[in-house]
Amino acid sequence: MKRIPYLQKAPSIHLRKQTMKNTFLFSLLFISFITQAQLNLIQYVKPIIGTEKMGHTYPGATVPFGAVQLSPETDTISYEINGKYNGDVYKYCAGYKYEDKTIVGFSHTHLSGTGHSDLGDFLIMPTQGKLQLNPGTAINPKSGYRSTYSHANEVAEAGYYKVKLDDDNILAEMTATTRVGMHQYTFPKSDESHIILDLMAGIYNYDEKDVWTYVRVVNDTLITGYRQTNGWARTRTVYFAMSFSKPFTQYGQKNYDDKQAYRGFWRKFDQTKNFPEIAGKKIRMYFDFKTEEAEKIKIKFALSSVSQENALENMQAEIKDWDFEKVKAQAQTSWNKELNKIAITAADDIKVNFYTAMYHTFINPTVYNDINGEYKGLDQNIHNANGFTNYSTFSLWDTYRALHPFFNIIQPSRNNDMVKSMLAHYDQSALHMLPIWSHYSNDNWCMSGYHSVSVIADAIIKGVFNGDENQALEACITTANHRNYEGIGYYIDLGYIPAEKLPKS
Amino acid sequence: MKRIPYLQKAPSIHLRKQTMKNTFLFSLLFISFITQAQLNLIQYVKPIIGTEKMGHTYPGATVPFGAVQLSPETDTISYEINGKYNGDVYKYCAGYKYEDKTIVGFSHTHLSGTGHSDLGDFLIMPTQGKLQLNPGTAINPKSGYRSTYSHANEVAEAGYYKVKLDDDNILAEMTATTRVGMHQYTFPKSDESHIILDLMAGIYNYDEKDVWTYVRVVNDTLITGYRQTNGWARTRTVYFAMSFSKPFTQYGQKNYDDKQAYRGFWRKFDQTKNFPEIAGKKIRMYFDFKTEEAEKIKIKFALSSVSQENALENMQAEIKDWDFEKVKAQAQTSWNKELNKIAITAADDIKVNFYTAMYHTFINPTVYNDINGEYKGLDQNIHNANGFTNYSTFSLWDTYRALHPFFNIIQPSRNNDMVKSMLAHYDQSALHMLPIWSHYSNDNWCMSGYHSVSVIADAIIKGVFNGDENQALEACITTANHRNYEGIGYYIDLGYIPAEKLPKS
Repeated sequence: MKRIPYLQKAPSIHLRKQTMKNTFLFSLLFISFITQAQLNLIQYVKPIIGTEKMGHTYPGATVPFGAVQLSPETDTISYEINGKYNGDVYKYCAGYKYEDKTIVGFSHTHLSGTGHSDLGDFLIMPTQGKLQLNPGTAINPKSGYRSTYSHANEVAEAGYYKVKLDDDNILAEMTATTRVGMHQYTFPKSDESHIILDLMAGIYNYDEKDVWTYVRVVNDTLITGYRQTNGWARTRTVYFAMSFSKPFTQYGQKNYDDKQAYRGFWRKFDQTKNFPEIAGKKIRMYFDFKTEEAEKIKIKFALSSVSQENALENMQAEIKDWDFEKVKAQAQTSWNKELNKIAITAADDIKVNFYTAMYHTFINPTVYNDINGEYKGLDQNIHNANGFTNYSTFSLWDTYRALHPFFNIIQPSRNNDMVKSMLAHYDQSALHMLPIWSHYSNDNWCMSGYHSVSVIADAIIKGVFNGDENQALEACITTANHRNYEGIGYYIDLGYIPAEKLPKS
Repeated sequence: MKRIPYLQKAPSIHLRKQTMKNTFLFSLLFISFITQAQLNLIQYVKPIIGTEKMGHTYPGATVPFGAVQLSPETDTISYEINGKYNGDVYKYCAGYKYEDKTIVGFSHTHLSGTGHSDLGDFLIMPTQGKLQLNPGTAINPKSGYRSTYSHANEVAEAGYYKVKLDDDNILAEMTATTRVGMHQYTFPKSDESHIILDLMAGIYNYDEKDVWTYVRVVNDTLITGYRQTNGWARTRTVYFAMSFSKPFTQYGQKNYDDKQAYRGFWRKFDQTKNFPEIAGKKIRMYFDFKTEEAEKIKIKFALSSVSQENALENMQAEIKDWDFEKVKAQAQTSWNKELNKIAITAADDIKVNFYTAMYHTFINPTVYNDINGEYKGLDQNIHNANGFTNYSTFSLWDTYRALHPFFNIIQPSRNNDMVKSMLAHYDQSALHMLPIWSHYSNDNWCMSGYHSVSVIADAIIKGVFNGDENQALEACITTANHRNYEGIGYYIDLGYIPAEKLPKS
């Protein structure tokens, strides 16, 4: 039986844990710690769970704590209608809604389980026949590039997603590494096969969200660029490198920006077709192929917070060839390894509940540095994660009570790095605050309190944090003394926050 | 007598030059090459020359080929009126118009002598009394932060500019190093002295030009950030670091963005006053001071194409203290050294014409890499200028005939680096083209032809270029064979470009 590290190191904590022995989780930990042989536990993971109604999970492919979450969108509705909040957008926090009958495409970034949203970057959709660059509507999917699909033709596993797109009879498959999404599309024979890259699609999207987009077509298989948005994360840029397994025959784009008075000298070019340098706010691109019957076209799509070059380096480091099955197997092995940290004896339906929940606990936070260690910090400067892995996506008011304490037991090394990531965030903070909700080189400031302090204190007390405890203490004290943040001043003075002063009290 | 380097190296060229001996310039070169003692030649430089009507020069402070051009704006009118081109904007290509009666402020980037425009980044204006964040109008300057001024109280020298701002009786002085502008404002006594940083002002400005602006108030003397624009340079970001000689007492900002449906969680903060992290499209900031009578407040304002950190490093490397007179003396010494490359014997008014023209020839192109060698390339990746100084602002259709051939004689080392910069541009070009008009990590594509080829060929033939000649030849041939660029195909096929096919023929 493998023991959890901090229990080996910190017997006093071990004693405290004994007082918890009646709890379900604790019993599991002690009853069922894993043996050396890896059980096949990913069979119990059903990523489709939680995708209906307000579950806000996504069914697509990611690896544990992966920076890429490659998953289908079943609609990309606007955050606003006539300048007012569109309540329906809330249903699409994770991009996918089980009840929907169409798929718009597959994008590379998703939040799991949140009650607010963002992301949905770089939506890719394969089509055939007449090129359509608008997504069309759910009621009339033929009016755009979206497609009907059926759950009968859909497979969602840990690290793998597959669906048949009925409109053009294209099989879509996807898997991922930490920083790279891999697509595999099996086309019917056609002289008019397309792969659409929608650079203006997004989750919680609205007119002003697309701040800037830049794309370089480096050659007939490689595209790089970035997308810059102003959303939940206020100042956010995601760089990408996209590689096709087969050269496209031609490509083009349409710019959906509002017309502006100044047009500059780029107007001398026909930028709509085979023009290799593209920029604007709202851009959709397409790449054309001739396909044989059942021909597979694969895409590697890598992300970086730092640069196009880093995205390309991430791609080259993490997926060296075009073996989709190998990448899928690696992704699933990595999931199985994580899930094997706890073995339970139970009926299969309980195992499905348990391991799918465990799967969900290992999706966020997400790795937020490139393969070379670089990442864009909260100060919008480039930093190097020296001696730790940098994480983002800290929804701390959700995670301080159970997730991070659980990580102290089951993911101590990662939780150590998460605390270090929080301290780096603090060092980079113009407000001198630990993260409230760390989100792609931003704090999105969602919610009150200072729950990172609980996470840090817990990691220190349990011996998981191996960094500078005094530095951590200073960050905690400074954060906890921000009188003007969400009623902290009242709390310091009165011991409570008066409800009449602050609704969130 | 000092000989020009390529003549020492390449006697065949020397012989060709002999055929030019009747020309004015050549006579000057041979008659009057400088002696070792430096003459005081900056006394003949009158940067005010050319600032009237359509001269399109600016009177402010810069060093030879400097990346910073710190100069007054006499208005910041819009490129458009009701969506149509505003013809008057053309008068403000260089920001300053001698006929104008008011100064709006002092910004850090200007083009000299161009017939189209851009830039005008980071406009600074000192005021006193009631804070006004809008610039006001030329007719009613008291309606905003602008001020009346008089040419009688104005001094424009090479590397130095001074003017009294009459409205609040503030003396404004400025000088520069290659990458840093230095301001010195002498205030009257007041508890309400302000320094305004207008981050939405610009030359050839229009609503959509301000793509994104980000500012961090690091402490009570240091501010960093960036400004991102979509103008003549389509995808352009300028990072800055700004340091005050004295702590401000308070600061604030106003955001002039259009209201958008999504407001995010930053709305919980009062971001208008003493809030240290600011972002948006249209931002004006202010910094408040209490001043004694005749108290000087100084500003160091550094630029970078790469990062806030690099801007700060540029500042720390180039201006280590607060000695304005020392920086001014360095700037003027560097100008005098450059001007001493040619000594003429002539009446003073001819010397003024000659040395002011020579001064203007050494303003553009501009240095475009940080003190650590890094710069943002045409591909929007960060590159390092290994073994050369990278230059931008190549208005090649203007400069290939006379300026670069002149540089081969009088600035051979710089022209060598300029050719290397052009070849780096080519390497980074998605279109595989040498620069047409190289402009802040962009080609702005102004004008036809491929004049960089002439510049490169001339530098090679005259022995000035010490790089890889075969690489240069390949770049020239590839560029000259872009059939779809501005009629090159016709030229290749017919030996001319039919006027009925292309107006620019």
